[in-house]
Amino acid sequence: MAIEFDIDRDVSEIARRTADFVRDTVLPAEEDCHGDVHAGPEPLRRGLQKAARAAGVFAPHVPQRWGGLGLDLRGQAVVFEAAGYSLLGPLALNCAAPDEGNMHLLEAVATEEQKARFLAPLAAGETRSCFAMTEPSPGAGSDPRALATTAVRIPGGWRINGRKWFISGADGAAFAICMARTSGEPGDPGGATMFLVGADNPGMKMVRNIGTLDRGLFAGHSELAFDDCEVTDDAVLGEADKGFEYAQVRLGPARLTHCMRWLGVARRAQDIALDRAVARTAFGGPLAELGMVQQQLADSEIDIETSRAVLWRACWELDQGRSGAQHTSIAKTFVSEAVGRVVDRAVQICGALGISEDAPLASLYREVRPFRVYDGPSETHRWAIAKRAVRAARERGGVR
Amino acid sequence: MAIEFDIDRDVSEIARRTADFVRDTVLPAEEDCHGDVHAGPEPLRRGLQKAARAAGVFAPHVPQRWGGLGLDLRGQAVVFEAAGYSLLGPLALNCAAPDEGNMHLLEAVATEEQKARFLAPLAAGETRSCFAMTEPSPGAGSDPRALATTAVRIPGGWRINGRKWFISGADGAAFAICMARTSGEPGDPGGATMFLVGADNPGMKMVRNIGTLDRGLFAGHSELAFDDCEVTDDAVLGEADKGFEYAQVRLGPARLTHCMRWLGVARRAQDIALDRAVARTAFGGPLAELGMVQQQLADSEIDIETSRAVLWRACWELDQGRSGAQHTSIAKTFVSEAVGRVVDRAVQICGALGISEDAPLASLYREVRPFRVYDGPSETHRWAIAKRAVRAARERGGVR
Amino acid sequence: MAIEFDIDRDVSEIARRTADFVRDTVLPAEEDCHGDVHAGPEPLRRGLQKAARAAGVFAPHVPQRWGGLGLDLRGQAVVFEAAGYSLLGPLALNCAAPDEGNMHLLEAVATEEQKARFLAPLAAGETRSCFAMTEPSPGAGSDPRALATTAVRIPGGWRINGRKWFISGADGAAFAICMARTSGEPGDPGGATMFLVGADNPGMKMVRNIGTLDRGLFAGHSELAFDDCEVTDDAVLGEADKGFEYAQVRLGPARLTHCMRWLGVARRAQDIALDRAVARTAFGGPLAELGMVQQQLADSEIDIETSRAVLWRACWELDQGRSGAQHTSIAKTFVSEAVGRVVDRAVQICGALGISEDAPLASLYREVRPFRVYDGPSETHRWAIAKRAVRAARERGGVR
Amino acid sequence: MAIEFDIDRDVSEIARRTADFVRDTVLPAEEDCHGDVHAGPEPLRRGLQKAARAAGVFAPHVPQRWGGLGLDLRGQAVVFEAAGYSLLGPLALNCAAPDEGNMHLLEAVATEEQKARFLAPLAAGETRSCFAMTEPSPGAGSDPRALATTAVRIPGGWRINGRKWFISGADGAAFAICMARTSGEPGDPGGATMFLVGADNPGMKMVRNIGTLDRGLFAGHSELAFDDCEVTDDAVLGEADKGFEYAQVRLGPARLTHCMRWLGVARRAQDIALDRAVARTAFGGPLAELGMVQQQLADSEIDIETSRAVLWRACWELDQGRSGAQHTSIAKTFVSEAVGRVVDRAVQICGALGISEDAPLASLYREVRPFRVYDGPSETHRWAIAKRAVRAARERGGVR
Repeated sequence: MAIEFDIDRDVSEIARRTADFVRDTVLPAEEDCHGDVHAGPEPLRRGLQKAARAAGVFAPHVPQRWGGLGLDLRGQAVVFEAAGYSLLGPLALNCAAPDEGNMHLLEAVATEEQKARFLAPLAAGETRSCFAMTEPSPGAGSDPRALATTAVRIPGGWRINGRKWFISGADGAAFAICMARTSGEPGDPGGATMFLVGADNPGMKMVRNIGTLDRGLFAGHSELAFDDCEVTDDAVLGEADKGFEYAQVRLGPARLTHCMRWLGVARRAQDIALDRAVARTAFGGPLAELGMVQQQLADSEIDIETSRAVLWRACWELDQGRSGAQHTSIAKTFVSEAVGRVVDRAVQICGALGISEDAPLASLYREVRPFRVYDGPSETHRWAIAKRAVRAARERGGVR
Repeated sequence: MAIEFDIDRDVSEIARRTADFVRDTVLPAEEDCHGDVHAGPEPLRRGLQKAARAAGVFAPHVPQRWGGLGLDLRGQAVVFEAAGYSLLGPLALNCAAPDEGNMHLLEAVATEEQKARFLAPLAAGETRSCFAMTEPSPGAGSDPRALATTAVRIPGGWRINGRKWFISGADGAAFAICMARTSGEPGDPGGATMFLVGADNPGMKMVRNIGTLDRGLFAGHSELAFDDCEVTDDAVLGEADKGFEYAQVRLGPARLTHCMRWLGVARRAQDIALDRAVARTAFGGPLAELGMVQQQLADSEIDIETSRAVLWRACWELDQGRSGAQHTSIAKTFVSEAVGRVVDRAVQICGALGISEDAPLASLYREVRPFRVYDGPSETHRWAIAKRAVRAARERGGVR
Repeated sequence: MAIEFDIDRDVSEIARRTADFVRDTVLPAEEDCHGDVHAGPEPLRRGLQKAARAAGVFAPHVPQRWGGLGLDLRGQAVVFEAAGYSLLGPLALNCAAPDEGNMHLLEAVATEEQKARFLAPLAAGETRSCFAMTEPSPGAGSDPRALATTAVRIPGGWRINGRKWFISGADGAAFAICMARTSGEPGDPGGATMFLVGADNPGMKMVRNIGTLDRGLFAGHSELAFDDCEVTDDAVLGEADKGFEYAQVRLGPARLTHCMRWLGVARRAQDIALDRAVARTAFGGPLAELGMVQQQLADSEIDIETSRAVLWRACWELDQGRSGAQHTSIAKTFVSEAVGRVVDRAVQICGALGISEDAPLASLYREVRPFRVYDGPSETHRWAIAKRAVRAARERGGVR
Repeated sequence: MAIEFDIDRDVSEIARRTADFVRDTVLPAEEDCHGDVHAGPEPLRRGLQKAARAAGVFAPHVPQRWGGLGLDLRGQAVVFEAAGYSLLGPLALNCAAPDEGNMHLLEAVATEEQKARFLAPLAAGETRSCFAMTEPSPGAGSDPRALATTAVRIPGGWRINGRKWFISGADGAAFAICMARTSGEPGDPGGATMFLVGADNPGMKMVRNIGTLDRGLFAGHSELAFDDCEVTDDAVLGEADKGFEYAQVRLGPARLTHCMRWLGVARRAQDIALDRAVARTAFGGPLAELGMVQQQLADSEIDIETSRAVLWRACWELDQGRSGAQHTSIAKTFVSEAVGRVVDRAVQICGALGISEDAPLASLYREVRPFRVYDGPSETHRWAIAKRAVRAARERGGVR
């Protein structure tokens, strides 16, 4: 074993098929939703997923048992980047947030019965899902311990009350994984439990869809109310009071899959900028020959390559079965900021075209900003990274 | 005479009135257009302008002869910043782009007859206008010399042909100031002429409104076609072939008034971030006590103060009757980037709220990005700044 | 009164004389100390000051009563920048740190007797001085309240004990202004007193000169020990227990004069870079025609102009008799970082020459780095800037 | 084969031994040269290399045939980083620049005779060497094609004339590899030849040692004159006129080994900062609990991890026998800048201590700045990176 950057032949093949599929099928479909995937119609999703299945690229992250291609995180890194080249690509491959992370969580924690009921149709693209953790201020946000939604014991089950916010994909989801406090007070480090709540539960209500800067996630982000929402005991995902631990099980890889998909966005933006720099003439030659443009193009190549390397590193850590918390925090923070820089430079290089809706750049620009907030804002990750580094420094005691 | 940062008492008074007016009248009106001023209805504009007139803050930049308050650029800097606190503020005061710049240009170059016909109603808010210079690639953009629209002599007038793009405010404008080449070839440094073209001229056609990242400019940005558009001799603004010179007359102050208005946007974003940092609790205290948040708040204060100082400096140069080209380029480049940073930090501090449409930040974020492109992208200004510095270095010959 | 950037005619004249003096007399003298002003010989100082006096530019900041030119801070801003073009310039004009700040402090706080004894010879360049506040960890540093040096009452005077560190100019100084705690404990916000301690006091000992990155300050930085150092009552500067307040009297303007001098350093570095960009050919033309070089040159022009504007603003605040704390913090933070960027870019443009001692750039590069630490590190200033902004936000109560 | 970040067991073991050796033997030796390795005495070098041999860590990059450990570039990446923790580490292991790169070049290009004469003693640490390519302006610098030193045919050999500058390690080197133009004119892309010139050749003269910002390279940087320097035919390294190609053979890996060693410097600086943040108290707690310090610590962890990942990627490319030009340019540019940021932050966190010579940080700060200039300045690499990206964009023709 040694340091290797070879891509497994099977993974390469899937990635190549994915790139072809995105180019031939997904990019042309982008016009069907006019850059507003939030409102993207269900037939579009169904059609794209059917095509992905036909192209042999459907559900690359899902175990073969559930009809997927069974790739590990490194394999996903390669394929999801190719899929992310279009905002619709991950939807087509059924590897978009939040479903992709939920599949991973269910596979890791759910009972066989729960898997059959919730995971199987989700993996097949027959249903969608959502993950209901974030709450409006002063509830769970950057600091998940502020969790304020409660679930109290009732005979044979639980009664959930609380308000959830920014719940991606909730509109039309078949079920929610709802995080509620089953012991302790807001601010306590433990005491959370995850519940599987069906869309048909009358106690779970869609309050509204939240307008956001980004428009690229199928069904957008919604506000949910849990008002005396009663569930039976078999709705508990894993064990009671272990919700924060399971959240880590979900969030570690989920952060990385976000990075993979957004890296595809960055590559798309850079390709558009390169094409523009080649085609557009100013000051007596193509933009591509102007030093300030070259600097931006080079910086974006550096950002993309560096993002990929540090992302693959984190994937490898998790594939080894390690927690990889420091590596995922570093990758998430760096990649989210690098991707933002790449798209920003592409906008600048394309000028007026970059800010018009004639090119997809304005859309991509809106998409990538929230990435520095979602899944833990950069500040929270930096705080955690520093804390771990300081702890390690204390442990080595001044001598390396 | 010496270095002074005192604000003239009259200007202070107008600025105070403007701040009150924005707070009491304009901010509440924001909901009427749901952040989409591009589509903002004409009655909204009329109503706000009427209110501004009643509040004694209408047309602060317009000479008193035409019903304005007659402020010089330094006075405008103070008042426009207060107006810019809302995206609707400049519209209300009738000092929004592109009308404000067009009034300045007409005042400087037009004949008395042209002033009576075009400037008087424009200054009074009875009409709107547009400035038709930018063309789709490979025409006039960052490099204005690439001007491709032509005007050829016909008996008693001119016939204009060409395509214009990203023409702000064109939809519904009473007239356009159209830049066309009357001599030379695309790439030549001279040979442009400005024409006043009425909206009723059948040769000038609205092709479409262009969707853009920003949504805060009344009537948005449009594409115009000049197809055998015939105008009479009195449509020439100033002298023939002097268009590029007049463009500088317009663009110098126009860059600065952009900076003034956007500085108000930055102040607004920072105020929202400050309020959030005070109100939102995380990790055991208000956000405002977290070091990483303090750093962002401080950096934004620095950006705002520094922007204001360098902007005032450039205004003073122009008020002295100097070209101030180096100072306006420096101010435009610095302020446009600083404003972008301020809004970006505010989004980050506000987290999910920052990217939702529940707060105005997402809107402001979209607004400020194009500022680094409009009125000369940062790269063009940097190139010009460096060129002037290099020329000065050659002239001093290595000895200061 | 209004916003003005005119430079007073008298100030202009002194600045012109200073620029000429620096060019003709000071720059040629730089070779005499080989970039190591720390060790710069006393005759060099004497000679330069004599020449400055002859050139009519000596002690521009000193009241005319003490033989100076009596400029206010705005005047100093213009003249000190011209002086700072050479690291030896401020020494020549007797306006270098720490003497310049000490003169200001003595003028503001000392008794007439103390002025005659300490200020008069200092202003005349006959003596030098130091300001003994900073202490080695865990004493007074970024956090001055950690002051650990003590002064206890003895009959007719005080006995001082403590250790001081990084005391600029101490080696050879005729006297020290020593800050010691006369009440309270380390960490308390008050209780400090300033003492004038003559170099002949046997209780004050030079421990060593501290080697540092910077080499441009006459006599460098030293460590001092106060071991049962006894002083009489007339050694108290101002009133007892008011030391922290007086420190602010000194530090506010001292931060700005630092900025002024370093701005001269930035201008010097940029001029060297410009000359190099004009003279050096690569890739088929002068460096000055390469876009990436132009970008760096432009960014440095922007940094210099912006620094000057924000610095002048802060000077004006203090000249009005206001505390100007927010403005001095902003100016100090911004200018120290901007100056660092300018010199860094100049090094990069000059390449190998930039890092060799054949050009003065390597020296300047070493000089400017500590500026982000001296007189309050950027972090402390940012913390203070944010705190003030947050306090103002709380006071306006969410409505502007 | 797949993406792997495992470190080979043998390499791990050598890296562990290296870390121990650096900690126990090299760090204590740092005081012997007072941070000035340029002037570091020969006995120090001999002693350290003897100790490294005893510790089993000598010459990790050298083929076993010549007494080394035979690591490939990925192995070197791990071990050189450990060695780089002290500026003396690479010297001790005989893997410092320029010898390490010269060994690689000789192994790749030299005849067996040349290897026996030049490579064998160099690999054993018995001699040192230098690489004489860079010339003072307007000769070969960022743009190697400007090569102005000439070698003309004489019977049985060549006569070399020219001036070389910034030749690292030249003082005391047993031989130089001198690049001279054997055909074409300055500016031509080909026509260079490499010559092996013994130190005893009377035509090669040391002009002077050049003072530089950095002080960490044994024997420093010198200026050399070739005045009618005659060499015999067997002095030609490889084939005539192929010098520029061989330079790439040397520079590709040499850039990466620079990165490896400097990454060790970054780790050292970050460890010092972490220790300081843990030990130093301010504002009521350890620095490590202040958000702005945490941000800097986190950013440096991110910079280090990201640098390592992108560096390993480039090493793998070269280990596969590919040119890896894009990857080495990206790694060199990113790592050189990241390392600079890490050291800069460490200085800031340590405050006055950081800029004093009491801590090694001031030394490290001086060392890392030139890294952005040596081996191709960032601008040249960015230009090359952009060019390759643009070429690829042209080739794919707008479709990915």
